[in-house]
Amino acid sequence: MLSIDEIQRPIAAEMKAFEPHFREAMRSRTALLDRIMHYIVKRKGKQMRPMFTLLSARLFGPVNESAFTAASLIELLHTATLVHDDVVDGSPLRRGFFSINALWKNKIAVLVGDYLLSRGLLLAIDKGEFELLRIVSHAVREMSEGELLQLEKSRNLNFSEEVYFTIIRQKTASLIAACCASGASAAGRPVEEVERMRKFGELVGIAFQIKDDLFDYGSGAETGKPTGLDIKEKKLTLPLIHALQHADADSAQTIRRVIETGGLDSLDRVITAIRDSGALDYSLARAQSFADAAHRALDAVPDGAARACLDVLARYAIHRDH
Amino acid sequence: MLSIDEIQRPIAAEMKAFEPHFREAMRSRTALLDRIMHYIVKRKGKQMRPMFTLLSARLFGPVNESAFTAASLIELLHTATLVHDDVVDGSPLRRGFFSINALWKNKIAVLVGDYLLSRGLLLAIDKGEFELLRIVSHAVREMSEGELLQLEKSRNLNFSEEVYFTIIRQKTASLIAACCASGASAAGRPVEEVERMRKFGELVGIAFQIKDDLFDYGSGAETGKPTGLDIKEKKLTLPLIHALQHADADSAQTIRRVIETGGLDSLDRVITAIRDSGALDYSLARAQSFADAAHRALDAVPDGAARACLDVLARYAIHRDH
Repeated sequence: MLSIDEIQRPIAAEMKAFEPHFREAMRSRTALLDRIMHYIVKRKGKQMRPMFTLLSARLFGPVNESAFTAASLIELLHTATLVHDDVVDGSPLRRGFFSINALWKNKIAVLVGDYLLSRGLLLAIDKGEFELLRIVSHAVREMSEGELLQLEKSRNLNFSEEVYFTIIRQKTASLIAACCASGASAAGRPVEEVERMRKFGELVGIAFQIKDDLFDYGSGAETGKPTGLDIKEKKLTLPLIHALQHADADSAQTIRRVIETGGLDSLDRVITAIRDSGALDYSLARAQSFADAAHRALDAVPDGAARACLDVLARYAIHRDH
Repeated sequence: MLSIDEIQRPIAAEMKAFEPHFREAMRSRTALLDRIMHYIVKRKGKQMRPMFTLLSARLFGPVNESAFTAASLIELLHTATLVHDDVVDGSPLRRGFFSINALWKNKIAVLVGDYLLSRGLLLAIDKGEFELLRIVSHAVREMSEGELLQLEKSRNLNFSEEVYFTIIRQKTASLIAACCASGASAAGRPVEEVERMRKFGELVGIAFQIKDDLFDYGSGAETGKPTGLDIKEKKLTLPLIHALQHADADSAQTIRRVIETGGLDSLDRVITAIRDSGALDYSLARAQSFADAAHRALDAVPDGAARACLDVLARYAIHRDH
């Protein structure tokens, strides 16, 4: 399996050119904000979303200013949601470093999230990127709707596969879809092509989230050790939904009881019951089928290094081990 | 002193017409969100911001669709910041009812704030209101910068009047300024006139916030009882800043010690020291001079019921008793 550094090699120059754009977008007029922005920039993640955006633009020609604006807006927005997520989850850490709420308290973290969002919007507005704003605002709405739908359904053990797919399409896939759509849109492509790239991003995003949910069961995770966090939070993911519907009556009963009581002392038994029901294999197969569909969606786009790279990213979504 | 109902009589029809616009903007596709939106709409506040927006449009002719969009966006945005404020302050109540965080927990409240913001943006984007977005996004940025500047400076007892005015201009006045500017912009007025209305809103907003800060000292508040909340939070407002600089050495020492230790047991002594220093009179006079400047800014706009109404609102900012 390729590493992210290897995957991004074909657009390494563009990712490098993106850095000053993003740093500039993170510049602030007040001392405290400047310190926090600096802290965030230094501990940036894999920047998957800018990568999807720039690759989707690169498919159709050299990466232009509009594509950099799109990548900056989406990364600002994604950072804003991570900062807010850490507040609501009370997480002390993010990417192995202290979270903003841990270092500066919740009050500041909520405001920093709002500030990042407004900075992103202003960037697009100042550059007159109306279409980009349209694409991204729809994604913001879907993301909050998806998170809220998940919270609403989280205690409902009859939660269906259909609801699960709606949730992950909204909360995760919609932003990756927006990356790919805005990249194509920045390249000035017609509506059908923008829509095709949006669909590609959505399929990859869904595969990505199923795989993420599988890590909770120790499936392919770096340590291989199941965390059971989703079970604890009564977050019904695909393996659980499938197991509840397909495990034998006794096992289903055990799983149901553990979720209802939140008792993690019998976690090993539950994980075994879920694995024995075939739910992990089933989930991985579903993720694979979304990755395959993403691969096929690329058939109609121009061949070349950017397409190959997007194709690898679609496979990386399910083959990654963290 | 007129009540808000009396003040808004000249645009009662427009405020009534605004209601379905706002309800429509608050409609949601999921059950939980719909319940929360319904709860918020039923417990709406005085809707000062829509009032400023619609009046600023009405100055120049009948209120059009663009003005209603502006009022909806700004009210959505304002509601979003209140929902986030209650999370960061841990407030169980808002306008005498339970807050969203109290009823649905912090996690949901943060997401609801983000959702409201994205709904507002989408509304403006779907209607192609680019100029409105520009005006409003600048205000969002200023609001979060102002709040963060206040937090950064809150423990600094050498905090100057200049910093105080920067903070209240950013955190409070910028949104009222955006209301007035977007109303004029919706009416299709030229840049200079939009800027004049922005300035009017900013002046009223500053007067409004000084008056708000005076309530903490029981100055004209409904109950007349000082709350001392700002002192407790080490929030340096105009009365405190003035008192620290102008009270006699002993009194200044007392005030300083109470703020530093956060000890509210000697609150009465501090309030007396602040009042004796002339800081409350001074602050009210400053608020009055901003309200006067707002009044003068209206000289250049068309005379009529809308102008008279805006003028009353500018005076209401400092004469209100809650």
